[in-house]
Amino acid sequence: MTTHHFEPTHYFTAIGSHEPVLRIAPGDTVITTTVDARGQDVNSQAITPPGNPMTGPFYVEGAEPGDTLVVHLDKLTPSRTYGWTAKMLAPNVVDPEYVPQLPWHPEEPRGPAKWHVDAEAWTATLLEPETKLGKLTLPLNPMVGCFGVAPDKGQAISTATSAEHGGNMDYNGFVQGVTVYFPVFAPGALFHIGDGHARQGDGEIVGTGIEISFDVQFTVELRKGKRIGWPRGENEEYIFTCGNARPLDQCVQHATTEMSKWLQEEYGLDARGAHILMGQTVKYDLGNIFDPAFTMVCKMPKNVLPSPTV
Amino acid sequence: MTTHHFEPTHYFTAIGSHEPVLRIAPGDTVITTTVDARGQDVNSQAITPPGNPMTGPFYVEGAEPGDTLVVHLDKLTPSRTYGWTAKMLAPNVVDPEYVPQLPWHPEEPRGPAKWHVDAEAWTATLLEPETKLGKLTLPLNPMVGCFGVAPDKGQAISTATSAEHGGNMDYNGFVQGVTVYFPVFAPGALFHIGDGHARQGDGEIVGTGIEISFDVQFTVELRKGKRIGWPRGENEEYIFTCGNARPLDQCVQHATTEMSKWLQEEYGLDARGAHILMGQTVKYDLGNIFDPAFTMVCKMPKNVLPSPTV
Amino acid sequence: MTTHHFEPTHYFTAIGSHEPVLRIAPGDTVITTTVDARGQDVNSQAITPPGNPMTGPFYVEGAEPGDTLVVHLDKLTPSRTYGWTAKMLAPNVVDPEYVPQLPWHPEEPRGPAKWHVDAEAWTATLLEPETKLGKLTLPLNPMVGCFGVAPDKGQAISTATSAEHGGNMDYNGFVQGVTVYFPVFAPGALFHIGDGHARQGDGEIVGTGIEISFDVQFTVELRKGKRIGWPRGENEEYIFTCGNARPLDQCVQHATTEMSKWLQEEYGLDARGAHILMGQTVKYDLGNIFDPAFTMVCKMPKNVLPSPTV
Amino acid sequence: MTTHHFEPTHYFTAIGSHEPVLRIAPGDTVITTTVDARGQDVNSQAITPPGNPMTGPFYVEGAEPGDTLVVHLDKLTPSRTYGWTAKMLAPNVVDPEYVPQLPWHPEEPRGPAKWHVDAEAWTATLLEPETKLGKLTLPLNPMVGCFGVAPDKGQAISTATSAEHGGNMDYNGFVQGVTVYFPVFAPGALFHIGDGHARQGDGEIVGTGIEISFDVQFTVELRKGKRIGWPRGENEEYIFTCGNARPLDQCVQHATTEMSKWLQEEYGLDARGAHILMGQTVKYDLGNIFDPAFTMVCKMPKNVLPSPTV
Repeated sequence: MTTHHFEPTHYFTAIGSHEPVLRIAPGDTVITTTVDARGQDVNSQAITPPGNPMTGPFYVEGAEPGDTLVVHLDKLTPSRTYGWTAKMLAPNVVDPEYVPQLPWHPEEPRGPAKWHVDAEAWTATLLEPETKLGKLTLPLNPMVGCFGVAPDKGQAISTATSAEHGGNMDYNGFVQGVTVYFPVFAPGALFHIGDGHARQGDGEIVGTGIEISFDVQFTVELRKGKRIGWPRGENEEYIFTCGNARPLDQCVQHATTEMSKWLQEEYGLDARGAHILMGQTVKYDLGNIFDPAFTMVCKMPKNVLPSPTV
Repeated sequence: MTTHHFEPTHYFTAIGSHEPVLRIAPGDTVITTTVDARGQDVNSQAITPPGNPMTGPFYVEGAEPGDTLVVHLDKLTPSRTYGWTAKMLAPNVVDPEYVPQLPWHPEEPRGPAKWHVDAEAWTATLLEPETKLGKLTLPLNPMVGCFGVAPDKGQAISTATSAEHGGNMDYNGFVQGVTVYFPVFAPGALFHIGDGHARQGDGEIVGTGIEISFDVQFTVELRKGKRIGWPRGENEEYIFTCGNARPLDQCVQHATTEMSKWLQEEYGLDARGAHILMGQTVKYDLGNIFDPAFTMVCKMPKNVLPSPTV
Repeated sequence: MTTHHFEPTHYFTAIGSHEPVLRIAPGDTVITTTVDARGQDVNSQAITPPGNPMTGPFYVEGAEPGDTLVVHLDKLTPSRTYGWTAKMLAPNVVDPEYVPQLPWHPEEPRGPAKWHVDAEAWTATLLEPETKLGKLTLPLNPMVGCFGVAPDKGQAISTATSAEHGGNMDYNGFVQGVTVYFPVFAPGALFHIGDGHARQGDGEIVGTGIEISFDVQFTVELRKGKRIGWPRGENEEYIFTCGNARPLDQCVQHATTEMSKWLQEEYGLDARGAHILMGQTVKYDLGNIFDPAFTMVCKMPKNVLPSPTV
Repeated sequence: MTTHHFEPTHYFTAIGSHEPVLRIAPGDTVITTTVDARGQDVNSQAITPPGNPMTGPFYVEGAEPGDTLVVHLDKLTPSRTYGWTAKMLAPNVVDPEYVPQLPWHPEEPRGPAKWHVDAEAWTATLLEPETKLGKLTLPLNPMVGCFGVAPDKGQAISTATSAEHGGNMDYNGFVQGVTVYFPVFAPGALFHIGDGHARQGDGEIVGTGIEISFDVQFTVELRKGKRIGWPRGENEEYIFTCGNARPLDQCVQHATTEMSKWLQEEYGLDARGAHILMGQTVKYDLGNIFDPAFTMVCKMPKNVLPSPTV
């Protein structure tokens, strides 16, 4: 049960079987940092090329294809006061004929909207541009935009997108206190993490959350021989499954199938019981509808579930 | 401000420009009843063919194409104790290759799962079939599955599906206390209502909520000359817009476009401000992913919005 | 075997159970006319409101729900020289971020592109606007954009869209000489026809073919008790099935399922044989990707099929 | 203008920036071989793991990101007589509720359908299983299922799928005589090729063509500084563009956008002219609707195009 303090020196914009930056054991905790989506660090300096640069990969001793990597998100804290967001709805989230009416405004100053993030006060305040919103202050909800493990077949998949291995899911439910389960495809699992958001609306419909650098602490465990199909997660209230694909319909199919299996594998339910229960109690969250692969999350409230059998 | 007590004698399974059953004025309240999705009434007797039979249509004096019909859902109460649900996830909500593993079980007794609905105790309890769920009791959340106004062009649209005129949206947010706005396409608006659910999970992924007959009370108002594109709604916490289409991506496009317009039309926001705000605060709910047209709902928390200007 | 000469006096922009304009018997032939998509007749006069106005409905004696209506497209001839098309790709057929780069050109004269259609020379020539295309002359391929039968449940469905009953499929394979099969949902089938195109590219990606009025001749037959799921068709080279839905993936699902059934029902194939054959010989055409429901067509070459058993 | 005879010793199942197996110059020709989708060679021996193993990558001297790699498919010849196909429609290409009716038949012998491929007679004949098809003989149409160049950002993308870099497009138009254009993302372009099919229906709806090993000859050229967005191609009759994504609608968007750009960049057309022309003359082919990313192809007949200006 070692606690590692790890300071990254380089970053990756594809999640794959890169040379590990650190070897850790199940039960270990890592305290480290992440840069923002454009590669800007705690001092708002661009220290690596943009595109959701990842801290890692961390090699987890003993992890092999067919296992499940368990990641506890112990702490996720914005590490600076400067946050930024995009300023316009993504063209793909509005009706095609409405796209020309989006505020393209080429005459406006370029660059993102700027926010002051106050981790003490737990608020983000819009600084610019000036709009009819006036002074807008929102509560924080720090979340991880992109994290996951090396995919199978020696693939290296861009941190712009997501798949069975996790990746850029941009789901605002990946917050401190959550436990996440990833299917292991490569020896050592090779865990990557980055792309912190101080908060984000559902769907990441402007293409960003409030992008910021993070101080991160996580703890890993391993479930040997436990094979799952898609990232799963758990918080105090819900268990949940993630489906990453396009269109959203297919995300729902992946997440729902994974939940149906989970309830039968680990909660002692028969198919009939699981389906009747899901039908009347399931919840869905929209992770993102911006990235090349979208994300839908299927959630089951723990208070309607039998006790887990595993 | 008349209160009408209306007892239906016949029902429609397409929403269209049928002969009105009652003429009411803006400000009027209607107290009436609805049968369940299979046409079963308060006594669980099938009194009309199945397929979401509608009570109505109600002709609202003065309503003309280009207006908005306002419907307050004053009371939605299950009117009997027998509720029923389907027992299997719909094939379209799981991965195609998982479909054969659904519990088709041809040897099992046919017919729906049966629930005891106790409107006093505010609970629904699963009676049969027997499963590993054991005795499952869930809180009620009575909602309208299908309601809306006559569509344009003299169309009559099946109550199996939904579109700009509303219809079978199967959204579990359409509960007592909510106000709903429909675009008016035909003289008198011609409001239809039915398909009550004692509760329902997101997505209506087994194809039903807990289907039941309802006692219903609603009050109508009219916004003359106010043109909207899709059904809108409002509760204490949120304003929301509905997009009805396939795939879910297109639902999101419709609902998001409608919200972007609403914020600029009635909340004094410029496009830039509306987009920045939506990006970091929007929520989405999945209405249904079962009917021919799916439904996604775009919600904005009232506590981040300026005061309405209209 | 009567030949009816029918001159329409009114038109419908929804396909439904309207009062029939003529009663005909199986084996009968109808010679009639259709107006163009904007309701313009042989003299280019707008005689009825726009939106694919339909000639009909024709009541076919003896047709009942569960039968199949057979329609032979005997003659489809443009009846005037003026044709028109839209001038810009539809926003939904290009990448969302490319939409602002479409030639919206508000400064240009409004109105459609104009074509001279010469049914003798079998050509259409672009008259205006002036573009770098210069003088463009294309061969004709006259086709029916919208036709079908009354849908079930008393529905009336806009001629802007399509479904199991046919409708606005905008498929450039519906040409003279083709036989089309429609499922019958209402007594008399209630056949409607209109929306002639002098030619059209795949997908109707600008939202129109070369729109024009038609002289039409068709002959109907009835297959009693033959139940089909989607419109089917046949020409010299292929049998084909139509799937109308969104997204295109679902169109493919409908059309492919219908073809799989057809081969097993009427060509003496077992499922295994039908699937192996389809896998290596099937063709797909894109009908339209513009209307509310899209259309994909699944085709099987007759020269690889066994003789029909029916 | 060297002709290289290259004998592969190892294969890749992800297309990426692997160590090149050969360096070639623009203008050079390569004569080589490919194994089938399961890694079986000319002797039907499995010599490498399955999953569309690629021959290559070939490093093209001088190729840099922002260039276009031109590949002439000079010769594509099945190199053995044994071909195999899958035997059942893929679950995702039929209606979800039809999936249980597919011929899963667990009691049948496992394994693929077997075909005798006669490259002299230019035929493929079904050997087993026995079905009501009897003896089925089809003409050959040898095509490349999977080929492309290393993607950007250091990605390595599974040969099960496709994207801007090409990959597993499974389009039956990629036959001998065709010229293909790929955007270059990595130094040397790093061209990979494999997954030969003796023939294939549209859509690869059973998940395979007639899978077989190939003798391959191709010639490369380079267009320096020519930036394209998606794979393009050309045969005697058409120019065409490929869109690889999900759902098919998005494939159409990519392919159509790319064609609109091409016509304006290289055929001297203004946007207005290009759009009017595309609307009435475009064709679409369905590449595959089986792989994780689907493929639609947008084709323009050369005989309606002005002469290329480039």
